[in-house]
Amino acid sequence: MESNTKEKLISVNVSGALPFLEKEPDFKAAAKALKTLREGNGAGNDFLGWLKLPFSYDKVEYARLRVCADRIRKDADALVVIGIGGSYLGARAAIEFLRSPRHSEACPAPKIYFLGNGIDASDVLQVLELVKGKSVYVNVVSKSGTTLEPALAFRIFKELLEKEYGKEGARKRIICTTDKARGALKSLADAEGYECFTVPDDIGGRYSVLSPVGLLPIAAAGIDTDELLKGAAEQAELGESEDPQANPSLLYAAVRQALYRQGKKVEILSCPSESLRFISEWWKQLYGESEGKQGLGIFPASCVFTADLHSMGQYIQDGERMLQETFLAVKDSGVKLAVPSSAENADGLNYLTGMDYADIYACAKEGVKQAHIKGGVPCTEIEMAAKDERSLGALIYFFELACAVSGYMEGVNPFDQPGVEEYKKNMFALLKKA
Amino acid sequence: MESNTKEKLISVNVSGALPFLEKEPDFKAAAKALKTLREGNGAGNDFLGWLKLPFSYDKVEYARLRVCADRIRKDADALVVIGIGGSYLGARAAIEFLRSPRHSEACPAPKIYFLGNGIDASDVLQVLELVKGKSVYVNVVSKSGTTLEPALAFRIFKELLEKEYGKEGARKRIICTTDKARGALKSLADAEGYECFTVPDDIGGRYSVLSPVGLLPIAAAGIDTDELLKGAAEQAELGESEDPQANPSLLYAAVRQALYRQGKKVEILSCPSESLRFISEWWKQLYGESEGKQGLGIFPASCVFTADLHSMGQYIQDGERMLQETFLAVKDSGVKLAVPSSAENADGLNYLTGMDYADIYACAKEGVKQAHIKGGVPCTEIEMAAKDERSLGALIYFFELACAVSGYMEGVNPFDQPGVEEYKKNMFALLKKA
Repeated sequence: MESNTKEKLISVNVSGALPFLEKEPDFKAAAKALKTLREGNGAGNDFLGWLKLPFSYDKVEYARLRVCADRIRKDADALVVIGIGGSYLGARAAIEFLRSPRHSEACPAPKIYFLGNGIDASDVLQVLELVKGKSVYVNVVSKSGTTLEPALAFRIFKELLEKEYGKEGARKRIICTTDKARGALKSLADAEGYECFTVPDDIGGRYSVLSPVGLLPIAAAGIDTDELLKGAAEQAELGESEDPQANPSLLYAAVRQALYRQGKKVEILSCPSESLRFISEWWKQLYGESEGKQGLGIFPASCVFTADLHSMGQYIQDGERMLQETFLAVKDSGVKLAVPSSAENADGLNYLTGMDYADIYACAKEGVKQAHIKGGVPCTEIEMAAKDERSLGALIYFFELACAVSGYMEGVNPFDQPGVEEYKKNMFALLKKA
Repeated sequence: MESNTKEKLISVNVSGALPFLEKEPDFKAAAKALKTLREGNGAGNDFLGWLKLPFSYDKVEYARLRVCADRIRKDADALVVIGIGGSYLGARAAIEFLRSPRHSEACPAPKIYFLGNGIDASDVLQVLELVKGKSVYVNVVSKSGTTLEPALAFRIFKELLEKEYGKEGARKRIICTTDKARGALKSLADAEGYECFTVPDDIGGRYSVLSPVGLLPIAAAGIDTDELLKGAAEQAELGESEDPQANPSLLYAAVRQALYRQGKKVEILSCPSESLRFISEWWKQLYGESEGKQGLGIFPASCVFTADLHSMGQYIQDGERMLQETFLAVKDSGVKLAVPSSAENADGLNYLTGMDYADIYACAKEGVKQAHIKGGVPCTEIEMAAKDERSLGALIYFFELACAVSGYMEGVNPFDQPGVEEYKKNMFALLKKA
């Protein structure tokens, strides 16, 4: 069963999963979840802004964002993006995928550094060292401005910029993505005169990558955000259908929930390259935080293939049979590399001479899929048409929509995160005592 | 319960796990597993070379390895390390931890690039671009020389080096870590006159980081391998004891197995910084490949804190209760960074002014631990004394020993990996057809 036609940006193939199911996936429940979502009468319905975002985004603000990104690209050697969780993962995922995981080493300026996503002195000190003497801009991303990790990093970089460029110079170099009206960061930004972009009220952090939260750093990295939004809009159109053959998000959601009900409680997202590692990390937040509640939820894990076939491969093939696997693939990687011939042929691989890397990977993936299915692991495939902005925009929307549908099918509110308050309460109590 | 005394490099604290156990951990079985291991009469007993490696390593070869590493450090701008799985993860883990995840951008030459750990054209092309015009050395790490991924990468870099430096020049710049006598790479190396180091016959890939497999790239990165081995030797001495209070590997192994028997089938290794991400990846291979067989095994997953508290935190707190968590901590990070004061105090965090990052992280970790325990997740803590070579050497040995003991307690052979042949068979069939 495929929800695929040639021109689609995202194809889902569940033929490696269906044979494991004792009964049909509950497409009716998936369609009902979608209806609830679209009609806005389910749990968490004040956080549905992402659903129409690819059409309804603020065009005036977006134009200003592009101007700001151009200014950064022209004037900055380095952009320090300060944020955590949803204020970080989406942008990093997009930049590592469309540029490179080595972007700050290998790509032209501005170099982009993500900070404020942990409490790690070495990391901060190293970035301070790397940007020394460079033209530095800062984008601080925080709805409230009081989240511990980004707030600490912002203190350090605000001080640095004011010392380096004076109050006036720092004003031009600090850009805030925050609440439109309230909160500590918004107040500070207004008082200091920083340019601001909005974290929409009706979009939670993990659904926010296509808002200014993700778009500003992504645009500053030279990625075409018009195309990203266009791809998301195309996918959003498909996402209106209640037919799982036309709407791949329904297909994916229904199948993974059916597998979950049969005890496949861990889902591994297997990616074809290190450049997708943070797409997996973004996906883990999206699904883990949306579904992991009330003692329920598929545990999201990830692998980078083929590297991890030589580490997690044994477990996936032969370990506890509680796994489902989702292969993420990119049809057209946009680059060619042919295996060179070898005079010695010591490795015995001359029969591959001239073959393209992408074709070799395709054989590896197919071999792995067959092996894992034989080993008892249901396998779903998600294929992006190309390694480009449009396909990534579509993938983001595809995953967001499937996640919301899947959460409703599970019977939880996929838009809250009540469990993260517990540790914060403890942490702040301990910090105040110290 | 702590197996801790002040001078130890590795401390294990299971007080956050014991209350979850219905009965005492089976320390008797752990001691018996250790005895079997040390007497060499268990499954996989032809792969026990790692057990005495910190004492028994070939001193003559090691001295030559140090000379070779010094030559690389003196003469190379870039070292390309070609290997996959156990021929890659340990070295990358050590270099990212003791240098930086940004080592190739931020650390002095030689820059170190890991290749041949996937089938990704962009990755290869980017490294080719980065090393253009630089003095390049290659360390190819492969027992057989026929493993697909490193073999393909080595073809490309052998060609490059011969083109750039001639046959004679390339000869000095290519270093092979491979079988001592047989195999495709060893034959080629002998024919071409490359310097070789040995992948010991009695050490499997995932236990090989303290052999030349890991030591050459680690030494080339300027890390003190004497100290690394010294730390491992200290831990190996403790590892002889059958008392879990003296031998923390027994404590860790017995507790995680007891939790596993109660349905805690997923273990999350939670690390304090991005610089430990690949220690987790190395750990995943070690445990996943050793224990994931015959339908058994704890599924190894990982988080980087505090970043992932804002992504996986919700799931860990509130999702399916099949989790056990192991916190990895570093007591002395070796760097200080104090929170600066803020005139505006917009974030309300001035009460933290002057507090060191490490102390803030410690409060966060304690708060998280308490929250996760309250949420039903048994928590074990592993603390390294310092961010240095000796502690890392000890950690490696601690984890290896615990893994072997844990595997024997589970009733499997922790030294084989029969499941990885399945996909290779399929893949090669598909490649040959293509």
